[in-house]
Amino acid sequence: MRQSQLFTKTQKDFPADETSAGTQFLLRAGFIDRTAAGVYTILPLGYNVLRKIENIIAKAMDRLGGQRVTMPALVPKKYWETTGRWNAFDALYKLKGKNDDEYALGATLEEIVTPLAQKYAVSYKDFPFSIYQIQTKFRDEMRAKSGLLRGREFLMKDLYSFHVDQKDCDALYEKVKDSYFSIFKETGLAASTYLTLAGGGTFSKFSHEFQTATEAGEDIIYLCDNCGFSINREIKKEYPKCPECGCEKFGEKKAIEVGNIFKLGTKYSAAFGFEAVGPDGCKMPVLMNCYGIGLTRLMGTVAEISRDSAGLIWPAAIAPFEAHLVELESKDGEVNKKIREAAQKIYSDLQKRDIGVLYDDRTGKSVGEKFKDADLLGMPFRVVVSEKSLAKDSVEIKKRDSREAELVGLDKACAFNFKD
Amino acid sequence: MRQSQLFTKTQKDFPADETSAGTQFLLRAGFIDRTAAGVYTILPLGYNVLRKIENIIAKAMDRLGGQRVTMPALVPKKYWETTGRWNAFDALYKLKGKNDDEYALGATLEEIVTPLAQKYAVSYKDFPFSIYQIQTKFRDEMRAKSGLLRGREFLMKDLYSFHVDQKDCDALYEKVKDSYFSIFKETGLAASTYLTLAGGGTFSKFSHEFQTATEAGEDIIYLCDNCGFSINREIKKEYPKCPECGCEKFGEKKAIEVGNIFKLGTKYSAAFGFEAVGPDGCKMPVLMNCYGIGLTRLMGTVAEISRDSAGLIWPAAIAPFEAHLVELESKDGEVNKKIREAAQKIYSDLQKRDIGVLYDDRTGKSVGEKFKDADLLGMPFRVVVSEKSLAKDSVEIKKRDSREAELVGLDKACAFNFKD
Repeated sequence: MRQSQLFTKTQKDFPADETSAGTQFLLRAGFIDRTAAGVYTILPLGYNVLRKIENIIAKAMDRLGGQRVTMPALVPKKYWETTGRWNAFDALYKLKGKNDDEYALGATLEEIVTPLAQKYAVSYKDFPFSIYQIQTKFRDEMRAKSGLLRGREFLMKDLYSFHVDQKDCDALYEKVKDSYFSIFKETGLAASTYLTLAGGGTFSKFSHEFQTATEAGEDIIYLCDNCGFSINREIKKEYPKCPECGCEKFGEKKAIEVGNIFKLGTKYSAAFGFEAVGPDGCKMPVLMNCYGIGLTRLMGTVAEISRDSAGLIWPAAIAPFEAHLVELESKDGEVNKKIREAAQKIYSDLQKRDIGVLYDDRTGKSVGEKFKDADLLGMPFRVVVSEKSLAKDSVEIKKRDSREAELVGLDKACAFNFKD
Repeated sequence: MRQSQLFTKTQKDFPADETSAGTQFLLRAGFIDRTAAGVYTILPLGYNVLRKIENIIAKAMDRLGGQRVTMPALVPKKYWETTGRWNAFDALYKLKGKNDDEYALGATLEEIVTPLAQKYAVSYKDFPFSIYQIQTKFRDEMRAKSGLLRGREFLMKDLYSFHVDQKDCDALYEKVKDSYFSIFKETGLAASTYLTLAGGGTFSKFSHEFQTATEAGEDIIYLCDNCGFSINREIKKEYPKCPECGCEKFGEKKAIEVGNIFKLGTKYSAAFGFEAVGPDGCKMPVLMNCYGIGLTRLMGTVAEISRDSAGLIWPAAIAPFEAHLVELESKDGEVNKKIREAAQKIYSDLQKRDIGVLYDDRTGKSVGEKFKDADLLGMPFRVVVSEKSLAKDSVEIKKRDSREAELVGLDKACAFNFKD
């Protein structure tokens, strides 16, 4: 994309109450716009990031055998009443239609997916199966702070699995743990993300969280010195020793929960009277697990942990564009024409090779302004075409997180590895 | 996908008050599930259709230069008050958060996109530009009937364009008309869709609608006998003659509005005080157009007009799968093994060629049941592997809307053209 066409621009200011440094950069760089506290518009650059995160997660869910659906945001009151959460879930946005029909906006979707599965799965032979959605969810947070880390409206993936066999149910739970770490690896979070034992909220007694260590996090985790397993502060008292290795030494870290998985047991299936007919004709209980990842939160977390003082540093797999092609103007009109020609050729060649390129073709901007913007936006590679580089028939390629630039011949620029 | 794994199943029944035949089939075939009146869950088969429609529309918007964003569903009251629509737009779902912050769910998004554009576009040089989103919208319809044709929650695309030059504004409006017809062509609606002059609601004085003729439609259009242009009944009195060709003869048709485009003029920009700084330093008014297509409605409309008495007939470009591979069981165990082997080979070969295949590998189903399901689901091509076909080293390929099947050699089945 040509930067001169991008309708957003970088900004110096951000709302004073945005305390997350990552979100401040996302706002200033034009990835998101704040519509209200906890409510954001995803702008073109942010949209690209989220779409890539979505694709990575969707592929992982497909590999697990998940079947994708989209559930409604308007969740009728009767379903919440069936599970007892109309009053028990404190962050529901409730509304009433013209016909006095009442809904709560989907804050979680067990109330939709359970009766949905029940409609189709009758016999034990219909199990196991998994259903997932990636969609907007809503929570009436008293204090929506920390930008994308805790929004009132956010994009989330939830996978729900249905089983009649406890072994099979537990096996998928373990498989999803692995799948999650592969997702966090691909999105650049794996190195600082810890599997954490936590409480289960309104969902279950315990859960496993995937906590990414960062000072911006709202959670406190106790990280086992020995095996790297961690325990959320909320249940630490119950676990003086690490449940994985027995070690008693823990480090304390602030962290943000980027994913969570729950063994729901029969909590929701029982509420809806959802049972299966077994091989002997008798009823069998239906077991459920659910597995969540917040996509907007994941984007906010990457912004939080992958940055420097100048701006964002995107991992290649989720960068809005792999390369930021920067054309520097010369004062000499003839030279300038050559710079533009060279830059446009590289732009079109890279696109042909399916490399995403943001092309800074803006005129009347100083070198300083262009480099500052490139650092703030944080594409993994900066490719500079200038009078100086052209004098050596080259472009200058610099990794965002490196100080050293590399001169690469014009004829070789397009074969450069922009993927890692 | 293996049909034995699909968690949905075909059903005989549907809610008695679903009057649209297309929606009845979508429900029975397991493309959608009704969560409440006007509120649907999109099931895996329906998800595939919507995703394909989304890709077709997104590509068309990208070609027009549209930049994709996602706007919030929670639209703060202050924005609606700025445009005077908090009370004037009668189908808003309103809600209040814990902090007494009030929102209406996005029923239309001028209230978000206008101040968003204003934040970045200052100089006349920043124009023109276009922003689009494809997201869920909400309308508190008194009577949500006709299934997907008029829902309370639905998926919609809106493109918004911003201009400081009337000519340029009008030129894009005409360009979008062409773009829309290319979208309707690709999705199978072009032959029965008419450009229609209509009122502008709360948006503008007039608008152009894209009306697809069907008995299930809620609108009445007057179709010019001569040129094919049409006029919505709501403004027919003002146009005794066709405004395009002057003809006075019209046919009356029931139709459903699948798209609409509006010249908004300065209605919303003026409300927000959004002006541009012109070349002479003076303020210039900002002109806006908006261009909508309902994606769930489009799916419902295709289901409505492309079907027969046995079920749906999907155009290849938006079918959930291009081919429905149906394996028919033999009573002879040895033969059965060969049938399965042949079917599995075709299944894997077609997938390698990027042909989407639904593989009916279900056991214990009669020929009649399998064929009935295939007709109801409506994939463009049915590929049958049976004892009879294998006796001729062949499969039987039948177009969904044809009575004739064709014997195609096993070695040639994968080179068959499943695209049209």
